[in-house]
Amino acid sequence: MKALNENCGIFGVIGHPEAAKMTYLGLYALQHRGQESAGIVTTDGRKMYERKGLGLVSDVFPDERALAPLVGDAAIGHNRYSTTGTTNIINAQPFLIRFRGGYIAAAHNGNLVNAQILRQHMEREGSIFRTSTDTEVIFHLMAHSKYSEIPDMISHALKRVRGAFSLLFLTPEMLVAVKDPHSFRPLVMGKKDGAWFFASETCAFDLIGAEFIRCLEPGEMVVVPAGGEPESLYPWGRIPLEKASGCIFEFIYFSRPDSIVFGAPVDKIRRRMGHQLAREHPVDADVVISVPDSSNTAALGFANESGIPFDLGLIRNHYIGRTFIQPQQKIREFSVRLKFNTVRGVIDGKRVVVVDDSIVRGTTSRQLVRMIREAGAKEVHVRIASPRIVNPCFYGVDTPDKKQLIAANKSIEEIRQFIGADSLGYLSIEGMLSIKGLPKMGFCTACFGTKYPVLIEDEAMKYKME
Amino acid sequence: MKALNENCGIFGVIGHPEAAKMTYLGLYALQHRGQESAGIVTTDGRKMYERKGLGLVSDVFPDERALAPLVGDAAIGHNRYSTTGTTNIINAQPFLIRFRGGYIAAAHNGNLVNAQILRQHMEREGSIFRTSTDTEVIFHLMAHSKYSEIPDMISHALKRVRGAFSLLFLTPEMLVAVKDPHSFRPLVMGKKDGAWFFASETCAFDLIGAEFIRCLEPGEMVVVPAGGEPESLYPWGRIPLEKASGCIFEFIYFSRPDSIVFGAPVDKIRRRMGHQLAREHPVDADVVISVPDSSNTAALGFANESGIPFDLGLIRNHYIGRTFIQPQQKIREFSVRLKFNTVRGVIDGKRVVVVDDSIVRGTTSRQLVRMIREAGAKEVHVRIASPRIVNPCFYGVDTPDKKQLIAANKSIEEIRQFIGADSLGYLSIEGMLSIKGLPKMGFCTACFGTKYPVLIEDEAMKYKME
Amino acid sequence: MKALNENCGIFGVIGHPEAAKMTYLGLYALQHRGQESAGIVTTDGRKMYERKGLGLVSDVFPDERALAPLVGDAAIGHNRYSTTGTTNIINAQPFLIRFRGGYIAAAHNGNLVNAQILRQHMEREGSIFRTSTDTEVIFHLMAHSKYSEIPDMISHALKRVRGAFSLLFLTPEMLVAVKDPHSFRPLVMGKKDGAWFFASETCAFDLIGAEFIRCLEPGEMVVVPAGGEPESLYPWGRIPLEKASGCIFEFIYFSRPDSIVFGAPVDKIRRRMGHQLAREHPVDADVVISVPDSSNTAALGFANESGIPFDLGLIRNHYIGRTFIQPQQKIREFSVRLKFNTVRGVIDGKRVVVVDDSIVRGTTSRQLVRMIREAGAKEVHVRIASPRIVNPCFYGVDTPDKKQLIAANKSIEEIRQFIGADSLGYLSIEGMLSIKGLPKMGFCTACFGTKYPVLIEDEAMKYKME
Amino acid sequence: MKALNENCGIFGVIGHPEAAKMTYLGLYALQHRGQESAGIVTTDGRKMYERKGLGLVSDVFPDERALAPLVGDAAIGHNRYSTTGTTNIINAQPFLIRFRGGYIAAAHNGNLVNAQILRQHMEREGSIFRTSTDTEVIFHLMAHSKYSEIPDMISHALKRVRGAFSLLFLTPEMLVAVKDPHSFRPLVMGKKDGAWFFASETCAFDLIGAEFIRCLEPGEMVVVPAGGEPESLYPWGRIPLEKASGCIFEFIYFSRPDSIVFGAPVDKIRRRMGHQLAREHPVDADVVISVPDSSNTAALGFANESGIPFDLGLIRNHYIGRTFIQPQQKIREFSVRLKFNTVRGVIDGKRVVVVDDSIVRGTTSRQLVRMIREAGAKEVHVRIASPRIVNPCFYGVDTPDKKQLIAANKSIEEIRQFIGADSLGYLSIEGMLSIKGLPKMGFCTACFGTKYPVLIEDEAMKYKME
Repeated sequence: MKALNENCGIFGVIGHPEAAKMTYLGLYALQHRGQESAGIVTTDGRKMYERKGLGLVSDVFPDERALAPLVGDAAIGHNRYSTTGTTNIINAQPFLIRFRGGYIAAAHNGNLVNAQILRQHMEREGSIFRTSTDTEVIFHLMAHSKYSEIPDMISHALKRVRGAFSLLFLTPEMLVAVKDPHSFRPLVMGKKDGAWFFASETCAFDLIGAEFIRCLEPGEMVVVPAGGEPESLYPWGRIPLEKASGCIFEFIYFSRPDSIVFGAPVDKIRRRMGHQLAREHPVDADVVISVPDSSNTAALGFANESGIPFDLGLIRNHYIGRTFIQPQQKIREFSVRLKFNTVRGVIDGKRVVVVDDSIVRGTTSRQLVRMIREAGAKEVHVRIASPRIVNPCFYGVDTPDKKQLIAANKSIEEIRQFIGADSLGYLSIEGMLSIKGLPKMGFCTACFGTKYPVLIEDEAMKYKME
Repeated sequence: MKALNENCGIFGVIGHPEAAKMTYLGLYALQHRGQESAGIVTTDGRKMYERKGLGLVSDVFPDERALAPLVGDAAIGHNRYSTTGTTNIINAQPFLIRFRGGYIAAAHNGNLVNAQILRQHMEREGSIFRTSTDTEVIFHLMAHSKYSEIPDMISHALKRVRGAFSLLFLTPEMLVAVKDPHSFRPLVMGKKDGAWFFASETCAFDLIGAEFIRCLEPGEMVVVPAGGEPESLYPWGRIPLEKASGCIFEFIYFSRPDSIVFGAPVDKIRRRMGHQLAREHPVDADVVISVPDSSNTAALGFANESGIPFDLGLIRNHYIGRTFIQPQQKIREFSVRLKFNTVRGVIDGKRVVVVDDSIVRGTTSRQLVRMIREAGAKEVHVRIASPRIVNPCFYGVDTPDKKQLIAANKSIEEIRQFIGADSLGYLSIEGMLSIKGLPKMGFCTACFGTKYPVLIEDEAMKYKME
Repeated sequence: MKALNENCGIFGVIGHPEAAKMTYLGLYALQHRGQESAGIVTTDGRKMYERKGLGLVSDVFPDERALAPLVGDAAIGHNRYSTTGTTNIINAQPFLIRFRGGYIAAAHNGNLVNAQILRQHMEREGSIFRTSTDTEVIFHLMAHSKYSEIPDMISHALKRVRGAFSLLFLTPEMLVAVKDPHSFRPLVMGKKDGAWFFASETCAFDLIGAEFIRCLEPGEMVVVPAGGEPESLYPWGRIPLEKASGCIFEFIYFSRPDSIVFGAPVDKIRRRMGHQLAREHPVDADVVISVPDSSNTAALGFANESGIPFDLGLIRNHYIGRTFIQPQQKIREFSVRLKFNTVRGVIDGKRVVVVDDSIVRGTTSRQLVRMIREAGAKEVHVRIASPRIVNPCFYGVDTPDKKQLIAANKSIEEIRQFIGADSLGYLSIEGMLSIKGLPKMGFCTACFGTKYPVLIEDEAMKYKME
Repeated sequence: MKALNENCGIFGVIGHPEAAKMTYLGLYALQHRGQESAGIVTTDGRKMYERKGLGLVSDVFPDERALAPLVGDAAIGHNRYSTTGTTNIINAQPFLIRFRGGYIAAAHNGNLVNAQILRQHMEREGSIFRTSTDTEVIFHLMAHSKYSEIPDMISHALKRVRGAFSLLFLTPEMLVAVKDPHSFRPLVMGKKDGAWFFASETCAFDLIGAEFIRCLEPGEMVVVPAGGEPESLYPWGRIPLEKASGCIFEFIYFSRPDSIVFGAPVDKIRRRMGHQLAREHPVDADVVISVPDSSNTAALGFANESGIPFDLGLIRNHYIGRTFIQPQQKIREFSVRLKFNTVRGVIDGKRVVVVDDSIVRGTTSRQLVRMIREAGAKEVHVRIASPRIVNPCFYGVDTPDKKQLIAANKSIEEIRQFIGADSLGYLSIEGMLSIKGLPKMGFCTACFGTKYPVLIEDEAMKYKME
């Protein structure tokens, strides 16, 4: 499932002599969270240095020379996946400005739901906006606060915004990491050689050899002054984990299986979703195949629980996304064929279970089912390791409008017919939330039809619900 | 003379179906005014479109495809020469923002002297700054004004800034061109096929075949609504030309000789500066040579007036500025050699007059004199077609600090010794201002030691005077 | 296993109005066979057109405009993996020349063993060489033949070379596909809409929707004239399949599992190698993991046969190969870490079987074992789905010198100690060749220590044996 | 006059520790002789190293890193101007091959007239050709010679070719510089710090500070062994200078005025051509203007001799050639406007003499005359500082076919009418050759209608005469 686009990856470090290089490697490990733009801002305690560009980390930083000007022992970095569809260097992060507090940069993962309203309000008050990023709204709020200390300003600003934000701020004096009180997006903290690290996922720590310390708590703000130790503040008070609404899609799709997010290893949860899916929707079949790579773990879980052998029936071309034929032909089905090919020997004459992580519009699934039948499958049973997506996300996941969400508009039987499967089964919300080992915290399941944890105040967003 | 860096080039058009292409050609003709970055913003009456980048116009717009997204029949463009030394895409113009008045873009030639003070003030009031451009200050002032119409907002903002500004604003509804009440920088108006054009110099009109209508008056604001005719407003009232302080360096160096600026043809004035220089500093010599290309016209004037034959004694390599040897060797003298070579046959055994447009640090002149002597000159007489530069410019010309200006620290005799010439003569201020055909207006000659027409309020700028 | 480098990918088509586009897509599907350079040559029956460059297919052909000049309805293309270590555009293929037969281009997969000797001989006779490719040797032989027809010239030339060659030739009049009499490298033939296609693997046909017709026979030369039907010639006579020596490594590592090569589906053979490996080297363990992606199929086979559950214990970062940190640090171990990360939950506290496709130097295996232990494995049992590599390959596989092949210099027990595994087992040659479904043909197993099927005449190659 | 395209620039050095850097600077100084491609080959006495690319020297060698791999103390370089119209990296020089003599590279300025015939002959004998360069023909001839020493092979080969060649050869053991017996193209020799230098023009020596020693004689071959002194050989015997046929266009247009070629300073000869032109075609006028920059010197000469004041009536935009508008519009007249603009004040109301170096097709002249009239000229008198071009060049100058040469098809009066001038005068052949200071040698004036000094054997070339 690829139509649900990734949210962003962020990384920060303070107290390391090779801060830019550490951040480069951290972004490299988080590349799966965003490929549209990459950027790093560093500080040497006096000035701040930035480099940003469109493309992969390796495009923006093609050689050592690209890192050389990024001096200093503190840095933050960002991999961006556009949720707006407009590719524009202006919106690349981290975002660096000057205001009465001096220079400050920020890297933001998540999406505010009242950004438009705040923006309109601030425009009426005389603010000017250069970008369409939420980060600029936060900076304006900081600038207009009464406070003179950076943590107070951040606290003031963030208490006025609503939505999802895992944020890293960098000034010449300090690095500040904050997670919103709902804890929508992951943010982890690590340590190595006296330096402190922050990242979206722990796989970034594994690469640089940093020790994973812990996840940030809901509404926690960690302030690390240059040369000092981290101090935790709680602008919204201490929020019990049960009141959180962590994005369950981090376990379903976003995070790498080798990461820990929200305190749990992704691979373990994802596998058990496969187990639960097999229990909820058993089927008599010969082989279980996955839609690689994102569904591998869930498919393996399904196979183990059902006893049906797991096999490699689809091969993914990892050079996809870089061919120009796709966007110009706009033949969605051809783009699926560019990305996947079937292994006939695995499929031919078999009753096949295909495990995918989710269905958004249904077009990819339809094409996959067709390809699997062409490869000789006797039956094709589709199993989805997440519940039906019936509502758009407003907290950072790039879902299409409600009218394009197939499950919002068709019954399961109608979806089955549309994709051409012999049977179709989704993981239930209850089944998903009952999974053993899932962190003891609240999760956001709004896209599956439950209540939105944060009120949507934004006109543009309401539009998506039509 | 190359150390006095060019100020910027701006171009605008409204009412032309190929607005982006016209602007591309206009910027191409104005390329001599800035090579650091180029950009174009267009509008189709609803949205605005931008493309900016570092480098020449031909680097930023390498082919038709680069212009294709810039739809609409109104556009503004900008060639930037950094006056700060920092090459940063962030500061490339035109500058496009969103504020309560909607979307607006601006292209600015010139320099404000109270930008820092205003910026500090506005930061205290809660404004955030993304760039170090003066334009951002103007936008903040507009955003905080009480007015709701764009021309009123512009008027409000510009009445609060001090310094040099030839400005083009573009919104989906109109194009606005303004010149500061001192008329520091040129701005001309043209017409073709019902479309209205604005440019720094008329050479941009020549290329696209537009008719030159007139120069903007000091403090004039021309508003051209989409589909409408230009209307002139005078936010500072009508200012007599005698009260203006046009930059005399436009005639000495910046503008192309084939342009009209401030109502006078550049080549005519520049030539007469050569005449006057010959009258003020006659010399018994065999040949007059110029430092090509910027001093050609003045040298020719010197030759004609003095009766000494003009000749081509220095050849300029037009591929200079693009070799990487220069910046790494940091041998200033070698960089002069990369740019110029002597023609021995012209110089050998001769008493040579070298006419240059100005002397800033004196290092280039020193190397040129040495090269001319090596080519066999019996005597080398340096004649400068402008007065001694003894003060930095705060209105857009990138002069170094006062302590680096050779004429601010040495007598003429000391300079002569430093550059190794047999004699040295500068044009006098009086002589320069007495030139026949010079527009009947006031000129700024502050860099030559007269009063600054606009008070310097800026700390950073005061620093330059030390 | 990454140190055994891929050989090349070739693709050809004749009779298709979009020949260049088909070839682009074919090369895209064959990208795994070579990433150093890519190229396409086309013909419209009169002229020939070429475009080549360093990098991926998507780098060399970034957009439709890159294909536009490649007109005509016949084309050949090439993805190159350098076996020499020198990255040079000069050696990129297809290789296009002019000689007495007019214009001709060729794309070559494989390696000649008497190229150096022929080259020295021809140099003595007065030939000049522009490249270090074998293809240039073949062209010289063609040019010096007595024949006047292209197929005769090719036949003449190829009968004089020794070694591995799957070759595609293109002239304005015809496309010729040839496989050497030993059938070292795969070459398949397909059809669609009256056009004829040739490719290294059938996965290229799947992408463009062409029908797989058959593999070329050992020593078969297929001539397809423009507008005509294929005709098969046999320059070396009909050679029985049993006398062939197909590269068994195509099943072990090179080919994509969804391809058919040498008449058998790769995934089926590769899986059964896993079965056989499990039978030969059983172990009491908790989990089987693979080194993704190349060992996935064999690992799955091992798991199925042994009854030990398969799991995903290593995650591969598909952006590897594009970070600049690796080559500069030259810390081999870090480069393994950049490419793979462990999934602790899968490994911790377990007795782990790691299935890899081969061991060359042993350094990657050593680092992987270390990482798996760091992730908590109680025991690490390494199983290799191919026999020990004790001799270099001279037919197109980029193996290092004999002295760098760990299995040529250490006993199995010494290798086990070197890589730090608790046990180590290799597939036996006999076991490998006994696999059910393996094509009824001879295979080359020289790298595993058996007789080289073609005598090595080349000094440089003998050197590798020391 | 720009339609007569430049021939190539070559540079060589042996015995200098920074051979690649010297060559880079030499090519930079010779950039005016060719902008299509640039390349450098070096040797350290064992191996040879090359880098070539399309574009300017600064495009192919953008930074120090591009030179770093070019180690060794001997090098040759080449700036290419395509005479064929096809831009192809394959044909970029220097050209490096391997043959029985080992590795050898060559850089060639000029054009052979029997290359096609030799090529066809050699193809029949079994040679294959990769490029369409003459250099490849020479290498084949060397390879087929009976000799074993490089100078003998070169001698053997060059005695079989006809036409123009100034050639530099480089092997690990020596550098060889040769000029054809007709001495068509310039080639000069210099010295610095014990190293020996060769270049097309002396301006390359001026930049690096090398001493100009002398021009090569007609048919001279200078061999400089590594670590040794130059030795001169004369494969064609000593040829008196009067029997030479140096390209007179080097004085008219190609060479930089600050260079010495064929033993005479270019500026002096070019100026005297202006004198002679003024004597041959006097006119009553107010101002003499040049078509910059190539006609500046001749125009000055005309002005001095005639007593009519010289002035700057046309301004050249040095960024031309890099705008994409020109090639796509194919409006020749617009391309002239992109390159030149008139200075109205110089021209308005005046009787203008325009001095240009030559007329090829007449289209540029026609547009210039029109622009000058639009700028207010009362009369426009065109004076051409060379004779009428009535025949194509076969020795390296990219003239069009005879039918496109306006002077081959129209009388002077018809040309005058076509370009719209009030009068038109060409320098006479006799006048040109009578110029004082012109080297005492024979010159080729075949393009002006005299006998071709070398018989044209080539079909393709004969075609140009139709």
